[in-house]
Amino acid sequence: MKFDLDKTIEVLERTPLLLEALLKNLSDEWSLSNEGEETWSPYDVVGHLIHGEKTDWIKRLEIILAEEGNKTFEPFDRFAQFEESKGKTLNQLLSEFKEIRNYNLQILRSKNITSADFTKKGMHPALGEATLVNLLSTWVVHDLNHLSQISRVMAKQYKEEVGPWIEYLPVLK
Amino acid sequence: MKFDLDKTIEVLERTPLLLEALLKNLSDEWSLSNEGEETWSPYDVVGHLIHGEKTDWIKRLEIILAEEGNKTFEPFDRFAQFEESKGKTLNQLLSEFKEIRNYNLQILRSKNITSADFTKKGMHPALGEATLVNLLSTWVVHDLNHLSQISRVMAKQYKEEVGPWIEYLPVLK
Repeated sequence: MKFDLDKTIEVLERTPLLLEALLKNLSDEWSLSNEGEETWSPYDVVGHLIHGEKTDWIKRLEIILAEEGNKTFEPFDRFAQFEESKGKTLNQLLSEFKEIRNYNLQILRSKNITSADFTKKGMHPALGEATLVNLLSTWVVHDLNHLSQISRVMAKQYKEEVGPWIEYLPVLK
Repeated sequence: MKFDLDKTIEVLERTPLLLEALLKNLSDEWSLSNEGEETWSPYDVVGHLIHGEKTDWIKRLEIILAEEGNKTFEPFDRFAQFEESKGKTLNQLLSEFKEIRNYNLQILRSKNITSADFTKKGMHPALGEATLVNLLSTWVVHDLNHLSQISRVMAKQYKEEVGPWIEYLPVLK
């Protein structure tokens, strides 16, 4: 599938709604359990997604679209959520994510991006040159990556309970 | 996490809602694309989930709870959806899934299952003995397994478009 801005936004705007459908008011046993030491719970993942909205996607988009200035992105802090989510409930994080994602999509739409912008570039501090298409596609895939992770983490809470069916459930491997 | 009936139903009843949030009115490029030959699109997965509701979970539950009779489950047809979904839109399948899942959860609740039933058994045609706890846990994990699959299949449609970020996106591996 070739990059398409409308089809990108189409997925990005669904993420807050499906996270709510999956996680809002969910029991702690599902939402706060992880896959073992140094892994993330669904709660941690939502905090991570919020941090990305605050510091990453739109900031990098603006660097790429800017005519001049430093083209190198700030490094992203993958552990910021452990501080930033402190004292907040999962429901609060879900609302916060919905609000900031919707706000960021307004900004994205306001840029009136055309295909002439697609190949504009920024510099990732570790990965090198990246285009606007790379950034926006990664935004979507990053959401889906973490949705897949949340599903897997939740599934693993019943790893012992499925008994012989474990053989047919690749998500538990 | 130990098996808990309420917490099992809590996840099972969310699945139709989150599938709607993710897939309803979604562009065909996202919902009808798969991971290559002999793999499933999100559309195929929803058909598979419907077939499970029709022929598998409740039927097997009733076999396990029955005091007598044949305790061996019918084999499950993993390819039935390719016939059964024919001519239906994804939105139709999502509605159909919601209806039959809600109906099946009513049946499940009506059984007034207690912990005395948890170790009752049936016989899986390939995997051998399985308890009621195994069956109900598998129902949940099976949902989450396919949610993880749908996320991965959608993510892969942008595999080429993410450019250098592929390195940070395990869902694309």
